[in-house]
Amino acid sequence: MERKGNLMTYRPDIKVFDATIRDGGLVNNFFFTDEFVKALYLANLRAGVDYMEMGYLADTDIFKVDDFGDWKFCKEENLRRIVGTNETDMKLSVMADVGRCNIRRDLLPKEESVIDMVRVATYINTMPAAIDMIEYAHELGYETTCNIMAISKANTPDIEEALALLAESHVDAVYIVDSYGSLFPEQIQSLTKMYLNAMEPAGKSVGIHAHNNQQMAFANTVEACSMGASFLDATVGSMGRGAGNCAMELLLGFLKNPRYNLTPVLAFYQDYILKLREEGLKWGYDIQYLLTGKMNLHPSSAIAFTKEDRTDYANFYHQLFDLDP
Amino acid sequence: MERKGNLMTYRPDIKVFDATIRDGGLVNNFFFTDEFVKALYLANLRAGVDYMEMGYLADTDIFKVDDFGDWKFCKEENLRRIVGTNETDMKLSVMADVGRCNIRRDLLPKEESVIDMVRVATYINTMPAAIDMIEYAHELGYETTCNIMAISKANTPDIEEALALLAESHVDAVYIVDSYGSLFPEQIQSLTKMYLNAMEPAGKSVGIHAHNNQQMAFANTVEACSMGASFLDATVGSMGRGAGNCAMELLLGFLKNPRYNLTPVLAFYQDYILKLREEGLKWGYDIQYLLTGKMNLHPSSAIAFTKEDRTDYANFYHQLFDLDP
Repeated sequence: MERKGNLMTYRPDIKVFDATIRDGGLVNNFFFTDEFVKALYLANLRAGVDYMEMGYLADTDIFKVDDFGDWKFCKEENLRRIVGTNETDMKLSVMADVGRCNIRRDLLPKEESVIDMVRVATYINTMPAAIDMIEYAHELGYETTCNIMAISKANTPDIEEALALLAESHVDAVYIVDSYGSLFPEQIQSLTKMYLNAMEPAGKSVGIHAHNNQQMAFANTVEACSMGASFLDATVGSMGRGAGNCAMELLLGFLKNPRYNLTPVLAFYQDYILKLREEGLKWGYDIQYLLTGKMNLHPSSAIAFTKEDRTDYANFYHQLFDLDP
Repeated sequence: MERKGNLMTYRPDIKVFDATIRDGGLVNNFFFTDEFVKALYLANLRAGVDYMEMGYLADTDIFKVDDFGDWKFCKEENLRRIVGTNETDMKLSVMADVGRCNIRRDLLPKEESVIDMVRVATYINTMPAAIDMIEYAHELGYETTCNIMAISKANTPDIEEALALLAESHVDAVYIVDSYGSLFPEQIQSLTKMYLNAMEPAGKSVGIHAHNNQQMAFANTVEACSMGASFLDATVGSMGRGAGNCAMELLLGFLKNPRYNLTPVLAFYQDYILKLREEGLKWGYDIQYLLTGKMNLHPSSAIAFTKEDRTDYANFYHQLFDLDP
């Protein structure tokens, strides 16, 4: 399989997907001010971003409403407080985690909602539950994606089986999700080929959601893109869990489609993202995340290391050897 | 041309090259303490690093000695203060910039020096001067490399001609140097193929020295490596000019040769590199460097932006449009 497109031109199938509120919300429990979310919405519009994820559709029976900001739950009235009826070219999405939401209760019919797309996040072993949610959201009128998380832990035959199931579903796109920031571009290349081989014949797209543990989030996104992935996730300032994500400013700086404009994202970064850092929020590449990424481990221990302001990296490295790889 | 090796095995031709003092010296004018340099030397030894660059061989007629630390000039007695006679497996190098050193005066015959390798840094238009220096250093008994800087600005036919000249010289290795942090892995792949096609038949190796303006330093190093480059430059904590380099801790975490050991580098990072940051030295990926990298510009304006503690990234971006690209 050849690369699709080249470094001089652009592919119109590419969709830039802003996940700042959703993945960044994992850093601050979704306590973004309305001013922040509104400014990001406007920056994304001006930047030509194709999709903006507003947050999770979490189940209030599982998560205490007071412990989180509104974007953990994405109630329709809260969305409309920011976007009105979103009479724009930019589509809006929410993420629904398998086992952590109740979409049969919480998801409105498409015509009653400003949401355009439901992204179902799942581990590979809960694929039937994910497909059930996808089909329900599809019936309600939404675009859907399946985001198969922690793919660096999955076994190739299992991935192939999951993709075969998805090819027969109504899902619109399937994501490669490198939750642990563990994968290298060569591996992303193989995975993208595998996903495309399964999805393209069914008329479905492939997406990439990368983490930056080994400073590979942007490189892996570029690699997946060049192999034919169309949905490219990014967050402003890489804001996201642990080592964060592919930076929107890197991605928009790279893409050649004149639709995209870097300046509004730079302005948002300097006016809003810097403030979050000054207030003490921490995310982004650091040695502890490199180590969990390298060892293909969930970043939770590195997040705890960060919260404790530890800098004994060598010691932490040896502690990781005791965790189940 | 196929990839050489794979992600599971290792290639014995790989040489890990520590450039922390040399490229990092551009951040602090080479004012490293002896304790720092000695600790790095010991860490590199324990880590299995193959080459350590001690600094530049700058001309004291051009640069005022008092303005710089010892590692700008690498006088033999200063080197020996740190490494004694270096009775180890690790080789030592110095960098000689075309037009900024006087190697006929300053370079001792190999048998009188602890230096093993002279790396000649040149722009592509001063290749004859570089080859003259390479031949002289070779005659004195040194290993040599030619580091062709700012390769993202060079024209392909010029590169081919330069490589043809080098193939006929006594140089041991030729480096791809992405001084502006401007290149993407696809471009590094093409360049590595071009370099190898010219150098391999002459029995010479290829190296990669990357900068991190677009968070591609490690990805580009991995890409060059997988295509067959053997000399891989890195610096601890990415310490180097502007956005810095490929991080040694990422590179050693990636390489599979049991010769390499990450722990001493992590210990050096926590004990010495963090201190430099606390003292106020600044380097590494940031938006201003992304912008000069994306626009294929020398990082000088981004370095000035950093020194002035500016954060008006959008404004800076538009100022860059007025610079000659």
